[in-house]
Amino acid sequence: MIKAGIVGGTGYTGVELLRLLVSHPEVEVAQVTSRSDAGIPVADMFPSLRGILGINFTEPDPDALAQCDVVFFATPHGVAQSQMPALIERGVRVVDLSADFRIRDAALWAQWYGQPHGCPELIGQAVYGLPERNRAAIAEAQLVACPGCYPTATQLALLPLLENNLVDPSHLIANAASGVSGAGKQAKVANLFAEVADSFKAYASAGHRHLPEIEQGLRDAQSEGQAPAELTFVPHLLPMIRGIHVTAYATLLGEPQDLTALFAERYKSEPFVDVLPAGSHPETRSVKSSNMCRISVVQPQGRDTVVVMSVIDNLTKGASGQAVQNMNIMFGFDESAGLQAAALLP
Amino acid sequence: MIKAGIVGGTGYTGVELLRLLVSHPEVEVAQVTSRSDAGIPVADMFPSLRGILGINFTEPDPDALAQCDVVFFATPHGVAQSQMPALIERGVRVVDLSADFRIRDAALWAQWYGQPHGCPELIGQAVYGLPERNRAAIAEAQLVACPGCYPTATQLALLPLLENNLVDPSHLIANAASGVSGAGKQAKVANLFAEVADSFKAYASAGHRHLPEIEQGLRDAQSEGQAPAELTFVPHLLPMIRGIHVTAYATLLGEPQDLTALFAERYKSEPFVDVLPAGSHPETRSVKSSNMCRISVVQPQGRDTVVVMSVIDNLTKGASGQAVQNMNIMFGFDESAGLQAAALLP
Amino acid sequence: MIKAGIVGGTGYTGVELLRLLVSHPEVEVAQVTSRSDAGIPVADMFPSLRGILGINFTEPDPDALAQCDVVFFATPHGVAQSQMPALIERGVRVVDLSADFRIRDAALWAQWYGQPHGCPELIGQAVYGLPERNRAAIAEAQLVACPGCYPTATQLALLPLLENNLVDPSHLIANAASGVSGAGKQAKVANLFAEVADSFKAYASAGHRHLPEIEQGLRDAQSEGQAPAELTFVPHLLPMIRGIHVTAYATLLGEPQDLTALFAERYKSEPFVDVLPAGSHPETRSVKSSNMCRISVVQPQGRDTVVVMSVIDNLTKGASGQAVQNMNIMFGFDESAGLQAAALLP
Amino acid sequence: MIKAGIVGGTGYTGVELLRLLVSHPEVEVAQVTSRSDAGIPVADMFPSLRGILGINFTEPDPDALAQCDVVFFATPHGVAQSQMPALIERGVRVVDLSADFRIRDAALWAQWYGQPHGCPELIGQAVYGLPERNRAAIAEAQLVACPGCYPTATQLALLPLLENNLVDPSHLIANAASGVSGAGKQAKVANLFAEVADSFKAYASAGHRHLPEIEQGLRDAQSEGQAPAELTFVPHLLPMIRGIHVTAYATLLGEPQDLTALFAERYKSEPFVDVLPAGSHPETRSVKSSNMCRISVVQPQGRDTVVVMSVIDNLTKGASGQAVQNMNIMFGFDESAGLQAAALLP
Repeated sequence: MIKAGIVGGTGYTGVELLRLLVSHPEVEVAQVTSRSDAGIPVADMFPSLRGILGINFTEPDPDALAQCDVVFFATPHGVAQSQMPALIERGVRVVDLSADFRIRDAALWAQWYGQPHGCPELIGQAVYGLPERNRAAIAEAQLVACPGCYPTATQLALLPLLENNLVDPSHLIANAASGVSGAGKQAKVANLFAEVADSFKAYASAGHRHLPEIEQGLRDAQSEGQAPAELTFVPHLLPMIRGIHVTAYATLLGEPQDLTALFAERYKSEPFVDVLPAGSHPETRSVKSSNMCRISVVQPQGRDTVVVMSVIDNLTKGASGQAVQNMNIMFGFDESAGLQAAALLP
Repeated sequence: MIKAGIVGGTGYTGVELLRLLVSHPEVEVAQVTSRSDAGIPVADMFPSLRGILGINFTEPDPDALAQCDVVFFATPHGVAQSQMPALIERGVRVVDLSADFRIRDAALWAQWYGQPHGCPELIGQAVYGLPERNRAAIAEAQLVACPGCYPTATQLALLPLLENNLVDPSHLIANAASGVSGAGKQAKVANLFAEVADSFKAYASAGHRHLPEIEQGLRDAQSEGQAPAELTFVPHLLPMIRGIHVTAYATLLGEPQDLTALFAERYKSEPFVDVLPAGSHPETRSVKSSNMCRISVVQPQGRDTVVVMSVIDNLTKGASGQAVQNMNIMFGFDESAGLQAAALLP
Repeated sequence: MIKAGIVGGTGYTGVELLRLLVSHPEVEVAQVTSRSDAGIPVADMFPSLRGILGINFTEPDPDALAQCDVVFFATPHGVAQSQMPALIERGVRVVDLSADFRIRDAALWAQWYGQPHGCPELIGQAVYGLPERNRAAIAEAQLVACPGCYPTATQLALLPLLENNLVDPSHLIANAASGVSGAGKQAKVANLFAEVADSFKAYASAGHRHLPEIEQGLRDAQSEGQAPAELTFVPHLLPMIRGIHVTAYATLLGEPQDLTALFAERYKSEPFVDVLPAGSHPETRSVKSSNMCRISVVQPQGRDTVVVMSVIDNLTKGASGQAVQNMNIMFGFDESAGLQAAALLP
Repeated sequence: MIKAGIVGGTGYTGVELLRLLVSHPEVEVAQVTSRSDAGIPVADMFPSLRGILGINFTEPDPDALAQCDVVFFATPHGVAQSQMPALIERGVRVVDLSADFRIRDAALWAQWYGQPHGCPELIGQAVYGLPERNRAAIAEAQLVACPGCYPTATQLALLPLLENNLVDPSHLIANAASGVSGAGKQAKVANLFAEVADSFKAYASAGHRHLPEIEQGLRDAQSEGQAPAELTFVPHLLPMIRGIHVTAYATLLGEPQDLTALFAERYKSEPFVDVLPAGSHPETRSVKSSNMCRISVVQPQGRDTVVVMSVIDNLTKGASGQAVQNMNIMFGFDESAGLQAAALLP
């Protein structure tokens, strides 16, 4: 059993992490910090944990956190940059669910997040925690930067095409839709039930912060000499709590081939990517509460546009589940430990 | 006051038509037919009409319907093809909300609808009821074929680009999402609350029946000599009752220009198309229960992909509201008569 | 045409009032005030009003508001108490949608609202705006205090029983459930989509502010000499935007009788109360966006407990629609003017 | 490891049972029967089980099912009555999730279910599977009749009051509300998304089939000599998938006492009943996907009406979770085995 700490455990990724960790066979949840709620039982905020988790929120304290084998940051961007160094120094292994260490170019980070990067010296150590790309490096890493929710679903949808130079990289499209929990638990009018329910809209179409992260990941997957991947990324807000659906479009180059077979081959050893038979349409509910990503591929009317659909639970494979998957890899546990439960359907 | 009849008034487009017509200043609802529910008060099926509409469903009867000045078909495809000739013969003006007379090529219709066209001789008389394209012809028509819901939203999103040859017509994309009422009121497991709520998925990505209708409309808008419009159309099912959102993508050709201004100019005289300021994102709730289509245009990162977002209420501008708009044009009423109420928000 | 002003037009009752008034044949919306949004077009906040209402929010100013024939307060409690006197003095007729003048006992008001009443001298002038009880007084009133949403639905459910001394007044129960728009548009975590969707709970069971208002109304309806009505009132939060459902329970006294007939007789002249046939269950969607209250009565297993179910749209008959109904009565318009549209179904 | 079979595994209680059993440490799912879908992989119907459960649906066959140590019936009422005897005869232990053996009076069953009881000779052997009342008998039983969803939540809310003769038994009220999954997966217009979403209503107020089951259970809990419990039971349909909320009302007799303490004491050893602190309101989402029942008690305004609120997940503690709990008791497993996961929140 290892001891885990969570910095910033009062949000939705925090409670999802707790839900997963309290059932994990190799982990004891030792600390959950919250400046605003220190001293309060965690189960008072999240009654789903009554009778399951008995500890209180504590003030974040590096010495206390250093008692943990692994610390998760489930904080808004900027926080990990400031609190991370004290833990890295103390030798703690860290899984950061925030955006702080996902982008390798500190200037690009600063441009999209509207503030200077607070800890550029650690960026080089951070391993981008998409196991389907970086499993070996994750195993060795002290600091893993978990991918964002949209980036996870979008990259898994497009990687096999880019890795094999099958599409025009300069006109990629990802039409994405997310449940509202992706917007976090801040009290904002825009996220009220009466604003979100019974409606659908795009947002941030001029440029979402996940765009540079996705393009970085796609370009990493391209062969040398290819034009760099350029993505039009339009996120939409769904009137539901959990789930991301990405519908990606690209123009095929070269000879026709069996794309479903290609995807199935690419992901055949992946425990959390499930390629559906041709003609299927993945539903977000098929992955609700689970760490699975389900994908299907179609080439409508046999024309040269390929459509890839991928679904994840934004709080699980898109955040806390992937964080646990990374922890499992880092500590040599079964990669699926604590992540094997079937999705909740209906 | 004219007398209106509705054939097949028990579905969702039927009740929406009734909602609009009972408040229309120039119309009396004279007949609502239903084979299965003949004899039953309409308000027993739709309690929203208690105290407002006092008539009973009747058996469909051409002689009785011929007493009406206008007859609406709110029926599944195939019905209008069989019952329409008797009314056309008797000189009744007809607005068909079904798919029966939208496609000019009977063979293409047969291919997509899986049965021979039942009344090819009337196809030539049918005017495609998209007022933003065909207002003058609608005014003179005896038979108006109302556009489908997706086709309305998609064409309004793409027409200004195609009419002006601004985009590559061979790689158009329409990523569409619809509320469940678009699937009608048939008892199917797939449309149960517990199947649809809290989930999101694409469907019919290999080919939806609205595709040939949309491509026909887009091609009508192109200048001669252009390559014919080819659309990748992927519909998705939203966990909500009403509303369609289309996110259309196209590759720009030629010189940069102010696309929002272009759209605003194109639709400036249209009572039911509202082009939003640059940077806006239309929400489906902004048109709920109204006949309005709201559109915005964006060109992310200044790249050559243009994104057009359009929203309608699938039951109103996407069906029954547009039917009333067509009737208004046909009978020389104010085009907005009975359609001026503000959308229901929140 | 009269001129109407709205104080506090940025919330949900504000936009609902605007939706109704812009279609009202006798009213011009002259002013909508908002301290925080003065200068901004109203339609920028509520895109549903684009093309329909062209004015901007203004600072609240008594002299400007005194140009109006009627002023509506759609403000949180406390505001009307402070701004009302200046308008009353200037002779303006006022319809207050807030709780400020509903309770006749200033001390009781202070106890439930946690602050002293700011304008006790006007309480005596205020007429409680439940037309089904006070139509004549409303017609003459300068100041009408519109009932709360729960109080409207609960009183309409119980009045016929209490007016006729048919039930034990000391053990009345109202199990109520409301859509989230009843909680207003304030940014609170508790009202976020991800907190409210897909869940159901009671709240304020130890005492909700609407309780004294309801008991006051019920006691007004009782004959002299009866024990004063005592109500157990438990509100619940529904995962939907609009609609209130009250299920009221009482113990019958005296001889058996046809309760549905009794209710139908009581409300036969009421334009906005619809008593359903025995065996019916009113649905909130049957009144969505309409000013109607639908009621049904049942006596399960022929035992001595009567169950009355009533539904309203909390924003319409429960707030803004009833405010318009009161205005119609005050100004001698047709009581249904602007309120005749059928409910939005589905 | 024991082998489990499921008869009728295509509905919502079926897939919930599968979700729980595939993670159960002591159980192997050996057979899932379905007449209509025999031969099809279970995971084709429920993609949430892809990669987790590899078997196909089979025709129900008593000899094959007799290979199982335990067989669950997740069938509509009537089926277990006809197929059960062959299994009982072969010595198989059976957990019946349907209504077939819940009511001890065959004539009463016939009256409420509208058909003669098909297997009255086995009624005497059936143990009513509410562990909080019948744990010892369940441990010995060959045939356990799992309680209905409403009966579970209602009995747990009222038992402590009736066991202690604290309330007037002749005027009990249970105002209940359920998510739509309780209505099953049959294709009915009434359960379509567009009929259920965004609305709320009561149903079956004149008499729901769960009423006699609840009254039987409540009367079992009363002391001798008490007037038999009579319940007014009004169920309502919630626009959500999972969750039951019961708000029970009763008139207190005798001396005032700390009711929360009384409930806490009654349930202190129960692994799946959680009594909340005074002043709390249980939310259905706090038990979503879990086998927990959460309860709170309030006595508004210190009057003599007590209000008890209880929540369960209708598919878990209200059906399949309780079935697994019963199986655990029958086979001597840890009663919580396979049922320890935290609820899914948000």
